[in-house]
Amino acid sequence: MIEPPSLEELIAEFSSLPGIGNKTARRLAYHILSRPREQAVRFSESILKAADHVKPCSRCYVFTEDEICSICRDRSNAKTICVVEKSSDILPFERSGVYQGLYFVLGGVLSPLDGVGPEALHIPLLIERVKTEGIQEVILGLGSSPEGESTALLIDRLLEGASVKRSRLARGIPMGSDLEFVDEITMLRAFEGRVIF
Amino acid sequence: MIEPPSLEELIAEFSSLPGIGNKTARRLAYHILSRPREQAVRFSESILKAADHVKPCSRCYVFTEDEICSICRDRSNAKTICVVEKSSDILPFERSGVYQGLYFVLGGVLSPLDGVGPEALHIPLLIERVKTEGIQEVILGLGSSPEGESTALLIDRLLEGASVKRSRLARGIPMGSDLEFVDEITMLRAFEGRVIF
Repeated sequence: MIEPPSLEELIAEFSSLPGIGNKTARRLAYHILSRPREQAVRFSESILKAADHVKPCSRCYVFTEDEICSICRDRSNAKTICVVEKSSDILPFERSGVYQGLYFVLGGVLSPLDGVGPEALHIPLLIERVKTEGIQEVILGLGSSPEGESTALLIDRLLEGASVKRSRLARGIPMGSDLEFVDEITMLRAFEGRVIF
Repeated sequence: MIEPPSLEELIAEFSSLPGIGNKTARRLAYHILSRPREQAVRFSESILKAADHVKPCSRCYVFTEDEICSICRDRSNAKTICVVEKSSDILPFERSGVYQGLYFVLGGVLSPLDGVGPEALHIPLLIERVKTEGIQEVILGLGSSPEGESTALLIDRLLEGASVKRSRLARGIPMGSDLEFVDEITMLRAFEGRVIF
């Protein structure tokens, strides 16, 4: 064993993060030890502080430090709700400024192979909110994976009785992409959804 | 502000690590918050534990939890010393098993533009050890950047008086590489250093 045990443990912790392989984990751990101790303390404390303070909003499950997140508070009159898989998925909507309504974080998408069924998501609360709060449009802002699509289909079906508009994000060619490198399924969706002008 | 302050702070801490851009930092921070709290606590503690326990060996500056590292203890009779820039640089030597001698971590390489002169490195202790401990060979295991090369040249010059063999690692084509993609300077070194057989 070349590395001290506490350094090995730190490397193992970094390796457990998504997209961080063994080599990167080692580089990060050594980097932390090569900086002044105060910086390691600050990093360590910021993890604990975030873990202790950040929790899902009790209405929409977006990460917040309060009981109810600022979006639910500030937009309490909004009549549209955008359904996303995870809290960070609201960022592109908010950054683009295109949407001023409410959000609802499912906490995942249907994935029978991983044992994630409808009961593991927050679907019952979503349906109840849509039906009791006079929501006029439910935007399904889920990813275009098979899991995302089947989750969107299920929610669409569960809302069939309610008189609420249901929509999903357009599929197509992303901005700035070279047509040559567009994959077959994206091309299929972009062609089928072509817009007359 | 969309993200809670403590989450923003955690993203900033991750962003301060080498090779971690803003997007990756955000993904890692959200990942930590989506796992059970115990895992965040364990990660936080492992940083603090490593920062508190790991320190440079008092003889060679390799990271260790003891006063003197296991390599200095186990190989106290060795008469070769391999000079490296930073503690993690000993790993490829140890993994390959090619070397059974001592190490010496400089703590950097000469970099006048960043204000790193000879006095900021541990060169005086290195020279003293080589001269008083009967060292027979100093292997300069420094990188092939201009800074690494000039640091190797300086140490070579400072040891000119001492009757000690000085060597540096061979430069050439790395194993498994396609000749087509070898850069000009590597090719120059590989050609100049070609071996007759």
